[in-house]
Amino acid sequence: MASSNVPFRNIVEAYQRIKPFVHQTPVLTCSTFNKLASKNSGCKDDSIKIELFFKCENLQKTGAFKARGASNAVMMAKDAPNLKGIVTHSSGNHGQAVAYACSTEVANVPCVVVVPKNTPSVKCEAIRGYGAELVFCESTPTSRKETCAKISEEKDYEIIHPYDNYNVIAGQATIAYEMMKEQSLDNLDAILVPISGGGMISGIALAAKQINPATKIIAVEPRGKELGPCLKAKQRLWSNPPQFIDTIAEGIKTQQTGQLTFPILCELIEESVLTISNEEMERGMKIVAERMKLVIEASAGASVAAALFKTEEIIKIWPEVRRIGVILCGGNTELVNFP
Amino acid sequence: MASSNVPFRNIVEAYQRIKPFVHQTPVLTCSTFNKLASKNSGCKDDSIKIELFFKCENLQKTGAFKARGASNAVMMAKDAPNLKGIVTHSSGNHGQAVAYACSTEVANVPCVVVVPKNTPSVKCEAIRGYGAELVFCESTPTSRKETCAKISEEKDYEIIHPYDNYNVIAGQATIAYEMMKEQSLDNLDAILVPISGGGMISGIALAAKQINPATKIIAVEPRGKELGPCLKAKQRLWSNPPQFIDTIAEGIKTQQTGQLTFPILCELIEESVLTISNEEMERGMKIVAERMKLVIEASAGASVAAALFKTEEIIKIWPEVRRIGVILCGGNTELVNFP
Repeated sequence: MASSNVPFRNIVEAYQRIKPFVHQTPVLTCSTFNKLASKNSGCKDDSIKIELFFKCENLQKTGAFKARGASNAVMMAKDAPNLKGIVTHSSGNHGQAVAYACSTEVANVPCVVVVPKNTPSVKCEAIRGYGAELVFCESTPTSRKETCAKISEEKDYEIIHPYDNYNVIAGQATIAYEMMKEQSLDNLDAILVPISGGGMISGIALAAKQINPATKIIAVEPRGKELGPCLKAKQRLWSNPPQFIDTIAEGIKTQQTGQLTFPILCELIEESVLTISNEEMERGMKIVAERMKLVIEASAGASVAAALFKTEEIIKIWPEVRRIGVILCGGNTELVNFP
Repeated sequence: MASSNVPFRNIVEAYQRIKPFVHQTPVLTCSTFNKLASKNSGCKDDSIKIELFFKCENLQKTGAFKARGASNAVMMAKDAPNLKGIVTHSSGNHGQAVAYACSTEVANVPCVVVVPKNTPSVKCEAIRGYGAELVFCESTPTSRKETCAKISEEKDYEIIHPYDNYNVIAGQATIAYEMMKEQSLDNLDAILVPISGGGMISGIALAAKQINPATKIIAVEPRGKELGPCLKAKQRLWSNPPQFIDTIAEGIKTQQTGQLTFPILCELIEESVLTISNEEMERGMKIVAERMKLVIEASAGASVAAALFKTEEIIKIWPEVRRIGVILCGGNTELVNFP
């Protein structure tokens, strides 16, 4: 089974390992949003009461959950005898997170981050701020991967892949471990998780299913990802070479999930997924700024939109779902673009 | 002594009383801000390490700390035998908070809120959303007070003053009680608190000085308030009739502190105050949105500006201060005005 590659003890160990380098992020609730979701559940007689629990990884170090996976992978890599440095490719948040982890006094490892040339400047500045070297590539998955491989070979640096890395996955899994164990939310009916390469959602599924097998893990995808048919067929139906999706959600634009993550998804997450348009993501970002007073990026806006505007669809597919965890995965957005 | 009007047990009781109606708001830290404040401390050799602890009352119910004082006062008033309703005047946040507390199932009391006619629409909508009646008045302290008194007389409604009310003050005091007791921050050297009528800062001072008499309570004022000379003289030197200050900080535009709060301030808070310009508040709001991913209003931007940009002034006046609590008092701002 794919899940046996990341046993639960690895997640618990990851949680202990990364504790000094990440925040325990708060779980917030909002009665206005509970009312709105209940109202949008499609139930005529008000008998469905939805409760939402927002896990605020936008308040995480580096502004996104990626600090967890990167810290776990970097802290595990740093003890290798001949480590010269670390290189990674990322549309921003993972790059920032690896740069941050490498820059900590405990790690103190040279770091190169390969980013597509259209990456928002706020993300580039933050990566440089952590002392890492930036290398720009073309804005395709293939160019990103090749540039990274080249640097790794030339400099003899270790690659930390943004999602196809079990140590990264174990790190992301600590989101669910923290929420369900430390913050006592082990009785969630479902968790809504934005999906890109699948590192976060596979980690969350691995942790959550061990803590409460009844908790459904539901992927929230940008329009154009077409994850649902792949999950139903348990096959990678995407066309190659891998593409980026045309979405405002910088953080989840990779169409294909990873080679290591896809089998975990097929094993642990729901076959049905929720598909969110750009406009819905923007509405999610806006309403969270207005009512919850949080800045979130578009990918987090997707999970908000799923919880608030797709509640009827959720109840139709999973009629028993009431208590829903909503992952606000990051807050790295340029304020000038804010809806 | 003025402080004896709000004994510590009243604060502890307020904390228990309002618990079901308010959030325990998180205390967040940000290493980038600690570095920035340390760098701005005016110390040449990096020997001063400032640590900032942000109490996120922008994440409070109704978007501001006012939910605490209003809940305490409303829950205490609701048991009076002949209570017909509650009326209050407020530039927005207190009105919203009283409307919220009155609308809870436990209270369920009719409520009228008097607001100046230029109050941001987001605040007006929120007040109406809690089922309260809005009455508009001229944008002067006198008109506000008179309109409120008239409604109170006509309808026989009880007035809950935004700050000159010991139950409100005890409610606001729970910010410090929660932070220092429940969240284990009893060893703060100072707490920076934006000041308007003085309900929040007098409450915070009352709680903090009981928990740790060494913690300095420092007022953060908008330019034009002229609080410092009054505190030094222990006299109300302001010109009458009371004025609003020309500031972008809607929440702290009242120039004069209250009749009940001023004596508490003279007894408990620091004589020196920090004065913040509009531009500094905007910088505070912007940097918190960018780096902490929080939406805060201008009055909260003032305490951020004090912590980050006035650190040299702080260290000059209070050389031993290192661990600083920063009160992010609210997040009710219209996104279109966001800097």
